[in-house]
Amino acid sequence: MTVTDDYLANNATYASNFEGPLPLPPSKHVAVLACMDARIDVYRVLGINEGESHVIRNAGGVASDDAIRSLAISQRLLGTEEIILIHHTDCGMLTFTDDEFKRSIQEETGIKPPWAAESFPDLAEDVRQSLRRLENSPFVTKHTSLRGFIFDVATGKLEEVTL
Amino acid sequence: MTVTDDYLANNATYASNFEGPLPLPPSKHVAVLACMDARIDVYRVLGINEGESHVIRNAGGVASDDAIRSLAISQRLLGTEEIILIHHTDCGMLTFTDDEFKRSIQEETGIKPPWAAESFPDLAEDVRQSLRRLENSPFVTKHTSLRGFIFDVATGKLEEVTL
Repeated sequence: MTVTDDYLANNATYASNFEGPLPLPPSKHVAVLACMDARIDVYRVLGINEGESHVIRNAGGVASDDAIRSLAISQRLLGTEEIILIHHTDCGMLTFTDDEFKRSIQEETGIKPPWAAESFPDLAEDVRQSLRRLENSPFVTKHTSLRGFIFDVATGKLEEVTL
Repeated sequence: MTVTDDYLANNATYASNFEGPLPLPPSKHVAVLACMDARIDVYRVLGINEGESHVIRNAGGVASDDAIRSLAISQRLLGTEEIILIHHTDCGMLTFTDDEFKRSIQEETGIKPPWAAESFPDLAEDVRQSLRRLENSPFVTKHTSLRGFIFDVATGKLEEVTL
């Protein structure tokens, strides 16, 4: 038995109480961009109900090209108008450097990743970096609100970071 | 008042009942890669508790370079060993083509995105495409389980797609 099997059993229970389908476009017109960290249950942290908001997540919650792709689709095809950016305390991205991570992969596999790992040494600085990338993107232009936060994994609170 | 403000009020309630912090590495050693669709509350769909599993999400739930970056960090630095891939019925990615989407951006802004939009015409085929990209990646090699599913937004059920 894998954990995947356990989760599939949970899904059967979930489906037995399921009411759907909801409409495709997010009803609250919000897109969240957050770190993939296991401790951040985005729907619970923000009190989001199903169908309300897109949720985009990657390592670090950084405004990568793929996050920008996702936000462009979210805004231009599905009408979202607010962006909520969430990084968090005790983030794994603070614990390594791109150089050492990529070197370790190269040494093991012979191949160096052609992408940036996007590690960062300062949390608030990286929230600002992602905010600036979004402000600067020619593809993500439809929002009326763009705000960045640090989620405290010890308290569950969001603290805003301003530019 | 924005929806962001409403969600921040929800977060104050969330934090008032919060117990933490949990450890950084996912306790169940799982990474989920899912579409950003608003109707997929990944933690509820799979019965995931906080701290158990990484959750990576983008438009389509595709195995993009950024998803591969996130999975490489998840596996190599934080010890995840299973990957669960989730696409879904009624997906927005089925409703357009890359050419028309990128053309519309170019016509409005003057700049054509240098990235693929990753639209797809067939759900199961794209699950298989993402599975194959992961199987083929030299950077995502530490898993003992890799399985792909389609989430039915009408029933809440996951249906497996095999290669």
